Amino acid sequence: MVCDVGPRDGLQNDKVTLEPPVRSQLCSRLAATGLLRVEAGSFVNPKLVPQMAGAEDVFAGLDGGRAVWAALVLNRRGLDRALAAGAGEVHYAYPLTDTFARRNQNTTVEAAAGTAAEVVTAAHAAGVRATVTLAVAFGCPFEGRVDPGVVTGHVRRMAAANADEIMLADTIGVGVPSQVRRLLTDAQAAADGTPVGLHLHNTRNTGYANALVGLEHGATLLDASVGGLGGCPFAPRATGNIATEDLLYLLEGEGVDTGADLDAVIGVSEWLSGVLGRDLPGLLYRAGGFP
Amino acid sequence: MVCDVGPRDGLQNDKVTLEPPVRSQLCSRLAATGLLRVEAGSFVNPKLVPQMAGAEDVFAGLDGGRAVWAALVLNRRGLDRALAAGAGEVHYAYPLTDTFARRNQNTTVEAAAGTAAEVVTAAHAAGVRATVTLAVAFGCPFEGRVDPGVVTGHVRRMAAANADEIMLADTIGVGVPSQVRRLLTDAQAAADGTPVGLHLHNTRNTGYANALVGLEHGATLLDASVGGLGGCPFAPRATGNIATEDLLYLLEGEGVDTGADLDAVIGVSEWLSGVLGRDLPGLLYRAGGFP
Repeated sequence: MVCDVGPRDGLQNDKVTLEPPVRSQLCSRLAATGLLRVEAGSFVNPKLVPQMAGAEDVFAGLDGGRAVWAALVLNRRGLDRALAAGAGEVHYAYPLTDTFARRNQNTTVEAAAGTAAEVVTAAHAAGVRATVTLAVAFGCPFEGRVDPGVVTGHVRRMAAANADEIMLADTIGVGVPSQVRRLLTDAQAAADGTPVGLHLHNTRNTGYANALVGLEHGATLLDASVGGLGGCPFAPRATGNIATEDLLYLLEGEGVDTGADLDAVIGVSEWLSGVLGRDLPGLLYRAGGFP
Repeated sequence: MVCDVGPRDGLQNDKVTLEPPVRSQLCSRLAATGLLRVEAGSFVNPKLVPQMAGAEDVFAGLDGGRAVWAALVLNRRGLDRALAAGAGEVHYAYPLTDTFARRNQNTTVEAAAGTAAEVVTAAHAAGVRATVTLAVAFGCPFEGRVDPGVVTGHVRRMAAANADEIMLADTIGVGVPSQVRRLLTDAQAAADGTPVGLHLHNTRNTGYANALVGLEHGATLLDASVGGLGGCPFAPRATGNIATEDLLYLLEGEGVDTGADLDAVIGVSEWLSGVLGRDLPGLLYRAGGFP
């Protein structure tokens, strides 16, 4: 299963800030392609992330039959806003290194993990699913590669906290297939039945190979962003998430029924490229599909 | 093992024509990184491919200790020029569909396969290795997906013709991992000991996943171009070959000793980007390596 995080992870790293009605339209267009999960925005401080301002308005403008609208939250206040806005599930993310935690969220790994457990419990009390994303699980821009044992430890902890799904995130796109094999296999053992997915970036052109290995090793969810929308704040000339339609092309080639209409997703990328007035990093929408 | 085909497959699709001394320098810089094979140019009609004009001058200006300098040839006349220029090995390429053969080389598959056998024999008579590349083996822009049995038939034929190596080429970048698995496995059986490699393009972002599957299934050689230099004449906004340094990052992550210095290859891409005055499609040289 694929979750399009472009309206959140893509747009939050973009120089262009789109108004809430345009972001609602982007989400609704994605849902119309058959994608079943869309991360429609994040409920964070608009002074820190102006691209995500007006998340309530984005959610109010959503229109899509079957899709689940997910919201990223980073604390209890964000969770309350997301629940009030009608989010269908919440995604809480925290990094696995203290340097990244301090610089990115002004917290510690320990404190953030504690908040994660609180957010999961509160979301469940409101009847909403909660996914926890372990950021920089493949490597940190400040601390380098992350000890696989640390990753496994947090997977075990979040499974015990009753997270509905645990995502291993290659936040800065340094991961390689050997890491995916090891981290995913170890995480599945530690998760004890809780689904484990991958949030991959294509910063160094390993994202799709990593997704393939993830598929082969039972990743339950793959995050991607339409058109490969997004960048990397730690490498200004670099690209961001793997592109949804490029991932779908790969998955279809592997015989996976994604439920989404590939040509329709390509159409959303073409539309979004027009809205932003530039080419997006994704390659498929430029080259075209192949019968 | 990796062969950098940037000076040939990359530059022949570029809008900018580099003078022979610059192309010699590009090749020599690549050899200095530790790469053991570089396709330095093609001996074709300069009226048809002006970017490759002066291939003799390119070869005369090469400077590299251990690298083998390969030359692409498409007929006997090209072979004679390549041998006179001192090419260390020749690469002959022909497509597996008649429409592509007619449009690209004004010939038929059958005639081109016959020429392949002649070129291999003549190269061997001159004491030079000869690789045969089967173009559009994964799909043709005019005829669609290619019957795997056709690919296998030509592999068998080229092995019988004593080709030293047979390359399956995804010329227009439509290949997916399931195809790599099947084509490579079938080709290895048909080749009966002759090494089989892959020439991959990243036009639809499947190139690195395909390379990974190729590695897992025993591909003996992977073609790539420094910086992902090159495009696709059949999709004007698309990118071309997989990038050498991005491939090396992936291979090193898999524990492969490539013999090349990754940082040095990144340096060549940075230099080439300056020469061409624009960003190249490769991602690693923009994002930087990771310890």
